[in-house]
Amino acid sequence: MGMVGGGKDAFIGAIHRIAANMDGLIELSCGALSIHPQLAKESGKELFLPEDRTYLSFEEMIEKESKMPDDKRIDFITIVTPNFAHYAPAAMALDHGFNVIVEKPMTFTLQEAKDLKKKLEASGKTLCLTHTYSGYPMVKQARAMVADGAFGKIRKIVVEYSQGWLSRLTEREGNAQASWRTDPKKSGKAGAMGDIGTHAAHLAEYISGLKITKLCADLNIMVEGRALDDDGNVLLKFDNGAAGVLIATQVAAGEENNLKIRIYGEKGGIDWTQQEPNTLLVKWLDQPAQIYRAGNNSPNLSSFALQNCRTPGGHPEGYLEAFANIYKNFAHTLMAKMEGKEPTKEMLDFPGIEDGVRGMAFIENVVASGNSKEKWTDFIE
Amino acid sequence: MGMVGGGKDAFIGAIHRIAANMDGLIELSCGALSIHPQLAKESGKELFLPEDRTYLSFEEMIEKESKMPDDKRIDFITIVTPNFAHYAPAAMALDHGFNVIVEKPMTFTLQEAKDLKKKLEASGKTLCLTHTYSGYPMVKQARAMVADGAFGKIRKIVVEYSQGWLSRLTEREGNAQASWRTDPKKSGKAGAMGDIGTHAAHLAEYISGLKITKLCADLNIMVEGRALDDDGNVLLKFDNGAAGVLIATQVAAGEENNLKIRIYGEKGGIDWTQQEPNTLLVKWLDQPAQIYRAGNNSPNLSSFALQNCRTPGGHPEGYLEAFANIYKNFAHTLMAKMEGKEPTKEMLDFPGIEDGVRGMAFIENVVASGNSKEKWTDFIE
Amino acid sequence: MGMVGGGKDAFIGAIHRIAANMDGLIELSCGALSIHPQLAKESGKELFLPEDRTYLSFEEMIEKESKMPDDKRIDFITIVTPNFAHYAPAAMALDHGFNVIVEKPMTFTLQEAKDLKKKLEASGKTLCLTHTYSGYPMVKQARAMVADGAFGKIRKIVVEYSQGWLSRLTEREGNAQASWRTDPKKSGKAGAMGDIGTHAAHLAEYISGLKITKLCADLNIMVEGRALDDDGNVLLKFDNGAAGVLIATQVAAGEENNLKIRIYGEKGGIDWTQQEPNTLLVKWLDQPAQIYRAGNNSPNLSSFALQNCRTPGGHPEGYLEAFANIYKNFAHTLMAKMEGKEPTKEMLDFPGIEDGVRGMAFIENVVASGNSKEKWTDFIE
Amino acid sequence: MGMVGGGKDAFIGAIHRIAANMDGLIELSCGALSIHPQLAKESGKELFLPEDRTYLSFEEMIEKESKMPDDKRIDFITIVTPNFAHYAPAAMALDHGFNVIVEKPMTFTLQEAKDLKKKLEASGKTLCLTHTYSGYPMVKQARAMVADGAFGKIRKIVVEYSQGWLSRLTEREGNAQASWRTDPKKSGKAGAMGDIGTHAAHLAEYISGLKITKLCADLNIMVEGRALDDDGNVLLKFDNGAAGVLIATQVAAGEENNLKIRIYGEKGGIDWTQQEPNTLLVKWLDQPAQIYRAGNNSPNLSSFALQNCRTPGGHPEGYLEAFANIYKNFAHTLMAKMEGKEPTKEMLDFPGIEDGVRGMAFIENVVASGNSKEKWTDFIE
Repeated sequence: MGMVGGGKDAFIGAIHRIAANMDGLIELSCGALSIHPQLAKESGKELFLPEDRTYLSFEEMIEKESKMPDDKRIDFITIVTPNFAHYAPAAMALDHGFNVIVEKPMTFTLQEAKDLKKKLEASGKTLCLTHTYSGYPMVKQARAMVADGAFGKIRKIVVEYSQGWLSRLTEREGNAQASWRTDPKKSGKAGAMGDIGTHAAHLAEYISGLKITKLCADLNIMVEGRALDDDGNVLLKFDNGAAGVLIATQVAAGEENNLKIRIYGEKGGIDWTQQEPNTLLVKWLDQPAQIYRAGNNSPNLSSFALQNCRTPGGHPEGYLEAFANIYKNFAHTLMAKMEGKEPTKEMLDFPGIEDGVRGMAFIENVVASGNSKEKWTDFIE
Repeated sequence: MGMVGGGKDAFIGAIHRIAANMDGLIELSCGALSIHPQLAKESGKELFLPEDRTYLSFEEMIEKESKMPDDKRIDFITIVTPNFAHYAPAAMALDHGFNVIVEKPMTFTLQEAKDLKKKLEASGKTLCLTHTYSGYPMVKQARAMVADGAFGKIRKIVVEYSQGWLSRLTEREGNAQASWRTDPKKSGKAGAMGDIGTHAAHLAEYISGLKITKLCADLNIMVEGRALDDDGNVLLKFDNGAAGVLIATQVAAGEENNLKIRIYGEKGGIDWTQQEPNTLLVKWLDQPAQIYRAGNNSPNLSSFALQNCRTPGGHPEGYLEAFANIYKNFAHTLMAKMEGKEPTKEMLDFPGIEDGVRGMAFIENVVASGNSKEKWTDFIE
Repeated sequence: MGMVGGGKDAFIGAIHRIAANMDGLIELSCGALSIHPQLAKESGKELFLPEDRTYLSFEEMIEKESKMPDDKRIDFITIVTPNFAHYAPAAMALDHGFNVIVEKPMTFTLQEAKDLKKKLEASGKTLCLTHTYSGYPMVKQARAMVADGAFGKIRKIVVEYSQGWLSRLTEREGNAQASWRTDPKKSGKAGAMGDIGTHAAHLAEYISGLKITKLCADLNIMVEGRALDDDGNVLLKFDNGAAGVLIATQVAAGEENNLKIRIYGEKGGIDWTQQEPNTLLVKWLDQPAQIYRAGNNSPNLSSFALQNCRTPGGHPEGYLEAFANIYKNFAHTLMAKMEGKEPTKEMLDFPGIEDGVRGMAFIENVVASGNSKEKWTDFIE
Repeated sequence: MGMVGGGKDAFIGAIHRIAANMDGLIELSCGALSIHPQLAKESGKELFLPEDRTYLSFEEMIEKESKMPDDKRIDFITIVTPNFAHYAPAAMALDHGFNVIVEKPMTFTLQEAKDLKKKLEASGKTLCLTHTYSGYPMVKQARAMVADGAFGKIRKIVVEYSQGWLSRLTEREGNAQASWRTDPKKSGKAGAMGDIGTHAAHLAEYISGLKITKLCADLNIMVEGRALDDDGNVLLKFDNGAAGVLIATQVAAGEENNLKIRIYGEKGGIDWTQQEPNTLLVKWLDQPAQIYRAGNNSPNLSSFALQNCRTPGGHPEGYLEAFANIYKNFAHTLMAKMEGKEPTKEMLDFPGIEDGVRGMAFIENVVASGNSKEKWTDFIE
């Protein structure tokens, strides 16, 4: 693995490295960790990278790595830069025959996402998008139960992602994360909706197996002086007729990373909350609710859930393990392909290019709806 | 107290009687318990009412009771009939000098509500509307903390009232409650929005002290064959610029009576859920969240909360006590007035005519918005 | 109903009156509310008692009431005095043909309890002991499930009753409750073990249907200067071989009224906590745990649970309703007997004389064990 | 790092490898993974170990590795075999100049533990004992708050570790874990008390800073045919006069890995449960309870907690991260020592030889008490 971005003090780069390390399948071999040469070098040293594979730009890294012998060359690059700097390294990596892992949202614009899709199809390579929350075993269990028809037709979806860390004008207080995420030039058209709303939308579609077809958005800037939405409430319609609500806010003072989803069907539904991720509450119309629990020893879970647990029930796994599940499944898929085998459906269960295009379309459509006086805006991909 | 409606097998009448009994302040003295004479008589007998005060119509009851001597005559009548039959007895009661307790929504139409308001003002009497959930001590605590400015300016309100009992076409299965509540001739313009959405809207305004100024509603009939909305999602704007979401649904299979509210301000906020009503979660931007708990011995509660607790912390009080708080405060208000005293602000803390008019306006506006293609509909009273 | 004790500012008397009022079956007709004449009179007035039935001693009350005509005379007396003053009025009431409700612990000594049992048997009357917590519907559901063998043989019981209100030497700070409850002359041999340990022991035996046969107690006085145990931990053995732990403490700073019980059998078990009483968690060896919920409309509850709910699921009932269930069942039992009918088994489901004798035996045995150097002390009745 | 034990299908070896991998500080370089040569070789291959460092016995591994050049030789060995096979490799490793990580309980007997302590002192090396649960940030926060005197003198400790996986005679059903853990020849004198009771005892002493001085144990074999205790309840006394209860059971059907602790002092206390490890409930005598939350961005946590978080609040970390914290702190300590620096007190915050001796003494004493008719058995080290 080679990493683009993720130098010292970056938030998400460190997370990716832990996720990649966890299962002993992936090694960080090289990096273009910062556009600041000094920082790139220091970061490489801290991560025990050899000096000659500590690059000063992604172009240099891709160029040089692509010429390495087979047994030394990295298999994929991971892109953990701010949104505006996703497309270029991803496109170049594909062009040079590397597989790609990229942070969400996949690109800066929907157009870039569509372009990347074409490139990917042409390359025959594999792209993975780190919608972390789909890596949780109980999310996979929920998806499996919905797909099995346990709840009948789905009628209602309520998904919410609430944070409080932008309750003040943090971007002016020297917070690097806040700074780029609230800057339209680095983040894109949307603030909270791009940063966390895309996770919420992805989770809703991932678990339900449905697609959003229309939306009605109320996007707000709650903290004066901010350039992008920090709060939003959205009404949703899905392709089977279900109705929904999506809330994404970064000014919910006192909330940490409160992603929650409930899905109701004719006969029951599910209730999951990311901050206690090992529990899936399953509600039934006429029977007591059930508490499904993660654990690789559970007789009650689907294969998709089981293969994403490392420990028996009661040994809580969390965010880093969910992240690592995405890496692990991606790695197993690559390994199967290298060995000429068909990856199993459980291996292939990680977000990819289609999710990336949907995510960028969500951003464009939700912003369009936010600016519209019409109630409903069609979701156009 | 004289009761209109609430015969055997009625749901809410029995609740009102328990609420009235609880504190030993109020006696059920007479009733027009059903429009079916046989049922009215049987119900009166079961409730130990004297035969001569078991009436066959509210007209008869009001007429005869108004002619009773002062020391025997009831002080107020309680109206627990379906919505379409609220206005007539309420109006007649006021005209005959009785105080009134009436179930929500207050009337069948907004026009009736406005008329009742005029009558009330003319009568000098007291009217109480049983928005039960505002009777909970921790709801009052939340309101007091918001009013004290503990959280700074309020930015976001998320209120939800989810039930699952109409997930099937229950109204065709002999369920009397389902039958009238889904019938436009008895329930009014709205289904779920009238039945429980009004509670949610009231709670949001009651705790926040804000008023809804605009709304954008998506109202749905999820169960085929039903005549009124059984599900709805609504975007809200409040008079201080806060944004909000209101969800009211009766097809959330597996939910019982899940009314929840969260309010976020600049510095923190509150989180309350009716099914565990003795806990108020208070979240802060930079401090650990706090768990406020009901209890008449708490050093941490406002006078409004304390005076609506009967027991020390850890002795859970519930729905019936919240209901009884409304009756108790109403009774204390009447007693103070009869004694020529000024009721305290804690006594006066029960919903009344203004809340009733707001509730009917909410129904009219939310239905109008549901039918509109415009995103925002002004909230007109 | 006539009440002995429970004057103004008394804690438990007010609770009994609310419980008696709630269902409209019982009327407070007379009282000997205090041994202080002035207080007795003022309390009677506040409770709207007629002056001539506001007595100055229980002897006077029982004497005079027993001579009243049938249609005016009370059916039972309720004794809510401190422990040392339970036996005399109870015994006299039985001797004069009244039924009795008495607070727990039933008497001051085990000997008194046995004497009372003989008197009761001789009288043919009914005695009810207010072990409140057995009045909760989900406690009854747990008992029914254990009795049905749902969990196989019971192996382990963990019951705990934690409060924090005696963390300081509150009895010297003018707290009337603390004062008599920590005074051996008024409370009896035990402090926390008598006041709340008896509730815990009763709950364990009530739900499990088992009897404690041996115990090993560590009783402590944690606050210097206190005369009775304020904390205790007890190992238990039950008559089927199950092992258990009972914790009762009043110095668990920060706890309110935290009574909890878990019972484990071969196949699963139950978990109930009084502060969220409408939920019964049911755990299974190989299946997801289930959340049973109170509600008079539940298809999943036993008749014992259902008949002790007043509202549908999601309308929380609490401590006062549990208390009122004991009163209601007792009242229905008396009414059935008066009408010459056999009370149903659900009506008869309230604690009585046997529970009272067990409770007093628990106090004697747990104190004996606390003073013993032997590990096990036999539970002698 | 070289590993002793932990071949394919072993439970705890895989956990150790993930923990070691997570932070990119430690590399698995060699192993003696099984006493079965075939299994040892296959396991080495699966873990990408070089063939020449895949050893067939720990003796071979320690022998050969000790002769490697400095830059290739491992720095420590990790012992993840069953209890009876801890001492020999640990002793030999120390004798050959290696640092050691060893699973709990540290040895097979107390005598071995004392011997190992002498060897360690003679060697000048570092030994780490994987009492995982002390690696959780909120456990460290609790310890810091107790140490700071936030709660005044500690009065009561209730610690419980409940599992249900031995509710049947699983050891006869081909479960390898059950098989050795219930076998006195492999597990030692105690079953549940050794396997999980030691964790509970360690946690109680770790957080409170107190030492158990006396205990009174009721140890049970609940499943017929089992050779060691599968259930136990223990009364405790601590060196400051505090009283406690320790419960350890593996027949609590329906429980997963339910380790919980509560500690009460004069002014408040803490409540932590391993299955939701990122929350620490802090209770106060006269103030609302507070919810402390893990997160490397929290302004409310001690340095001990902060340095054991990898992510901001709301990104749940779990069991594997707690385990990895022990590895990380151990690794940082070794690195500091190698660089001739003094490790910080946060680095040194991992369990070691003293904890190991205490743990073995706990096993001996609790078994002695279980066999005694005396109430109290002194805790002898």
